[in-house]
Amino acid sequence: MELIRENDYVIIFTAGKKYCVKVLQDKSFSTKNGTIKLKDIIGKPFGIEFEKHFIFKPTIEDIILFGLKRETQIVYPKESFYIAFKLGLKNGMKVFECGTGSGALTITLATIVAPDGFVYTYEKEKKFYKKAKSNIKKFGYEKNVKIFLKNIDEGIEEKDFDAAFIDVKEPWNYITLIYQILKPSAMLGVIVPTTNQISKLIPELSSKFSDIEILEFLQRYYKINPERIRPEDRMVAHTGYLIFARKVLKEI
Amino acid sequence: MELIRENDYVIIFTAGKKYCVKVLQDKSFSTKNGTIKLKDIIGKPFGIEFEKHFIFKPTIEDIILFGLKRETQIVYPKESFYIAFKLGLKNGMKVFECGTGSGALTITLATIVAPDGFVYTYEKEKKFYKKAKSNIKKFGYEKNVKIFLKNIDEGIEEKDFDAAFIDVKEPWNYITLIYQILKPSAMLGVIVPTTNQISKLIPELSSKFSDIEILEFLQRYYKINPERIRPEDRMVAHTGYLIFARKVLKEI
Amino acid sequence: MELIRENDYVIIFTAGKKYCVKVLQDKSFSTKNGTIKLKDIIGKPFGIEFEKHFIFKPTIEDIILFGLKRETQIVYPKESFYIAFKLGLKNGMKVFECGTGSGALTITLATIVAPDGFVYTYEKEKKFYKKAKSNIKKFGYEKNVKIFLKNIDEGIEEKDFDAAFIDVKEPWNYITLIYQILKPSAMLGVIVPTTNQISKLIPELSSKFSDIEILEFLQRYYKINPERIRPEDRMVAHTGYLIFARKVLKEI
Amino acid sequence: MELIRENDYVIIFTAGKKYCVKVLQDKSFSTKNGTIKLKDIIGKPFGIEFEKHFIFKPTIEDIILFGLKRETQIVYPKESFYIAFKLGLKNGMKVFECGTGSGALTITLATIVAPDGFVYTYEKEKKFYKKAKSNIKKFGYEKNVKIFLKNIDEGIEEKDFDAAFIDVKEPWNYITLIYQILKPSAMLGVIVPTTNQISKLIPELSSKFSDIEILEFLQRYYKINPERIRPEDRMVAHTGYLIFARKVLKEI
Repeated sequence: MELIRENDYVIIFTAGKKYCVKVLQDKSFSTKNGTIKLKDIIGKPFGIEFEKHFIFKPTIEDIILFGLKRETQIVYPKESFYIAFKLGLKNGMKVFECGTGSGALTITLATIVAPDGFVYTYEKEKKFYKKAKSNIKKFGYEKNVKIFLKNIDEGIEEKDFDAAFIDVKEPWNYITLIYQILKPSAMLGVIVPTTNQISKLIPELSSKFSDIEILEFLQRYYKINPERIRPEDRMVAHTGYLIFARKVLKEI
Repeated sequence: MELIRENDYVIIFTAGKKYCVKVLQDKSFSTKNGTIKLKDIIGKPFGIEFEKHFIFKPTIEDIILFGLKRETQIVYPKESFYIAFKLGLKNGMKVFECGTGSGALTITLATIVAPDGFVYTYEKEKKFYKKAKSNIKKFGYEKNVKIFLKNIDEGIEEKDFDAAFIDVKEPWNYITLIYQILKPSAMLGVIVPTTNQISKLIPELSSKFSDIEILEFLQRYYKINPERIRPEDRMVAHTGYLIFARKVLKEI
Repeated sequence: MELIRENDYVIIFTAGKKYCVKVLQDKSFSTKNGTIKLKDIIGKPFGIEFEKHFIFKPTIEDIILFGLKRETQIVYPKESFYIAFKLGLKNGMKVFECGTGSGALTITLATIVAPDGFVYTYEKEKKFYKKAKSNIKKFGYEKNVKIFLKNIDEGIEEKDFDAAFIDVKEPWNYITLIYQILKPSAMLGVIVPTTNQISKLIPELSSKFSDIEILEFLQRYYKINPERIRPEDRMVAHTGYLIFARKVLKEI
Repeated sequence: MELIRENDYVIIFTAGKKYCVKVLQDKSFSTKNGTIKLKDIIGKPFGIEFEKHFIFKPTIEDIILFGLKRETQIVYPKESFYIAFKLGLKNGMKVFECGTGSGALTITLATIVAPDGFVYTYEKEKKFYKKAKSNIKKFGYEKNVKIFLKNIDEGIEEKDFDAAFIDVKEPWNYITLIYQILKPSAMLGVIVPTTNQISKLIPELSSKFSDIEILEFLQRYYKINPERIRPEDRMVAHTGYLIFARKVLKEI
């Protein structure tokens, strides 16, 4: 049974809400259901109910949704969890990402290539870079992430990547570059919010990649009353379109 | 650059279709676009275009969709990729699965807990068990999977699991059992095809687990003509409802 | 060209919002974009842009969404517009509705059976009945609606209906009753928010009706920037499940 | 009770399928469940079960889905039923449509403007025009439809329409024309299959119309087993995007 230690991050779940909280001796945390002195949960096991608050060990979804400090729109779990596997990643692989944003996708990719693989991630905005770097460290993903404050327009130094994912405004500008750093047969993933971007991306992609797929996910939550099973009233209608394609070796 | 060797599995992509094929010296493979002598691609790199056929290295999605021999309905990537992360899994963890089915979810879970973790998976039907075992071995996942020909009704011998996922007809019968083998705070996932099953499951779940979520995914593919961006005409409307909940430690 | 007269209802569309307003000589109407003296638009044509406000003639959708005073959850256009046609209605037909609620579906049904047909609608709550009656009159639908302050448990006096639609908590209790008042082959429609209600309804329905269909609608709006075509961020995930079935003549 | 007469069209519902059949003395109709001599159902009421076949009176949905001879892709009920009301139509109104296609939307519009209103519908292909004209007559909608074999490029002779709907490849070419024939405040509807067409349409539309909306519908059917409530396995993913806007009177 794992016990909560000082400086651990915990998820406090109460009144239908979740909070990611660092356990400090001298701090309290207040919710609708009252105030917890955090020193009181030190030494207790994860999973307890404590004064109407459930104390959980953070999963990666918790970290993404409630733990990361955000400066930007993030890639949400409904997409990022799919992306990591769709790219064909596994332990030991090397994946390129641009841009890092707040690091939500970065830590997802890091999880799947750990312990022996690496995410190389580029972020050109200093503000985002610092926040992402801090997020990655805070939750222990730094061993599998190499983060660079760097503009992809200046090129990519590493090569022989097993996969790549780019989340940038004009992805069509970087297809040749990405092509050069990928192993043949490797998967490239792209996320864009608009169909206009898809229209611009596909022609570039078609010249060097094959097996192009475009898709989107709708995730619908249900209310949990067993006598009244029904979807929630509202849902997220759109986060982005995902595009995947595989590098084709042109001349051999 | 990785070269295709004899006995490798490859994805042959041609005329909009994919095939998972074992590369044997003396075999040919025929598609709409002609016949390939497989010995001709041995020694060539993955990612080549060969006589109108693209030869790719299989990703886990390829393996699930085109490589596994199926005796049963499988958990599809749109759900299984989400499940693996949602359960909070990472390298070194130990996850319980029941039933194995054709092994599609098993290899997804194995990928995320590799190289140091394990999937313990129970399958009670001998026919499915043998097929799943063969599937798991065929694609190299056996190092991280312990598969048992065993009926969950007889109990579960292992314990202290970091997560569990059950895909059985009457999941409500096993909630107490699963509770006993999970670490506190660990996540349980369930898939059921009908809302009636959700109604029966929730009351059982509520007594021992918290943070219950019910959700479903719709995945919509788009046509790839950049001048005519639009969804495909038809889509999968339903595979299953996912339910997740976390073990609460009742007495301390 | 139709001119705005005193006492007309108009839609004022401004800053992305719509308001249904009665044009009174001595009143003003204020929005984010300023204040309009309503006397200033009297005599002007519908369709004008007036001081950053567009003045439109209300459509039935405008009336439902912005004109009706609501005491209850309404049947929304995405369902009600489909229902009216799905029931097979046209001019001259007689349709039964229970309960009236705020009258949103009532006026939709009235539109399609007008000018020679009738909606017979039952509402048991006096408060809702009065509000619905007022809504129906206010927008000129009273010629095709017969509204009753009546509990369906007491029976239905009229018969030989061409179709029926019921929006009540326990629709399974009224299937025999509805069967008796419908012409053979006539369509019955039901709306329920939960799948548990579907489970209870279907067995009752199956004994007397045939051609049962269960369905739901998802309506997704898009942003209107032509350079950035994409869905809105959020959408309605659920209003209700629709069930339709046709009366089978059991003995002849 | 309405009796089936010779030459009536009926819906035969059996083994989960529907057929729209003309009742002729000397014809039979065969399905999986056997053969019916059609003379045997003459004089019997609609709604009967006859030798495992249910005989229903066609609703407008039946006519659209099973009765119309099709030369073209049709506007389906999930969209057309919404369109008719969304356009603000009711008895006595005059609506313009282009192109007629197989007449599926035409008869929907005719139903809502009947008995005193008219659909003016243009079709430029002789083959489609003849088929649509025949479809409209066959099911009795000719009193409210004026169909023209005419190319909209040559202009529109009528004017003062209460609404318009266009289903053409390049709708952006006709916005000025449609503007001229609509009453101020009147609603224009457009259907296009691709987002590229939306991008071209919106700028044209924005200059003369206001209150632009873009939307799509997803319709999901459920299996009707009350013990196993769940969606059908597959669904239609896309038919078209709907765009609506209202004519603004530019100068007064």
